[in-house]
Amino acid sequence: RHRCVVVRAEGINPSIRKSEEKVVDMVKVADLPTPKAVYCRCWRSAKFPYCDGAHVKHNKATGDNVGPLVIDSTPAAAPQ
Amino acid sequence: RHRCVVVRAEGINPSIRKSEEKVVDMVKVADLPTPKAVYCRCWRSAKFPYCDGAHVKHNKATGDNVGPLVIDSTPAAAPQ
Ligand code: FES
Ligand code: FES
Repeated sequence: RHRCVVVRAEGINPSIRKSEEKVVDMVKVADLPTPKAVYCRCWRSAKFPYCDGAHVKHNKATGDNVGPLVIDSTPAAAPQ
Repeated sequence: RHRCVVVRAEGINPSIRKSEEKVVDMVKVADLPTPKAVYCRCWRSAKFPYCDGAHVKHNKATGDNVGPLVIDSTPAAAPQ
């Protein structure tokens, strides 16, 4: 009898920009298209680096709990 | 003879805030402590949601290529 031990030292990005040694993205706040911009942290979005909701399917399929980073560039209410 | 087939439908977040159903973080640009803020997308940072460089070890251990999201809130050079 055998048991397969699942080794957790797995990559988390199956397909995004695999030709790059390290996928780093730079967001310039001055250039944000919308006051609230949603960025993917699950590496499953078809619109990476943006979130397209693919984390929902990933979480359901795996029992995971990942979600996006939301950048809110709404100006402060009372600038000084 | 056996082969273990690695099922890729694995979670990518082994330990961060697992009591939350979905880990979403909101960044208010007006509150950013530094003009360039670096946010983790590898789910290995001890300072999550910030990047602490843990992606380097993860990439080496797994052959992965993930990296952070950098938010640059430097004011535009010539505001209009
Ligand atoms: S699609 Fe990846 S976090 Fe939403
Ligand atoms: S520590 Fe996670 S991206 Fe840098």
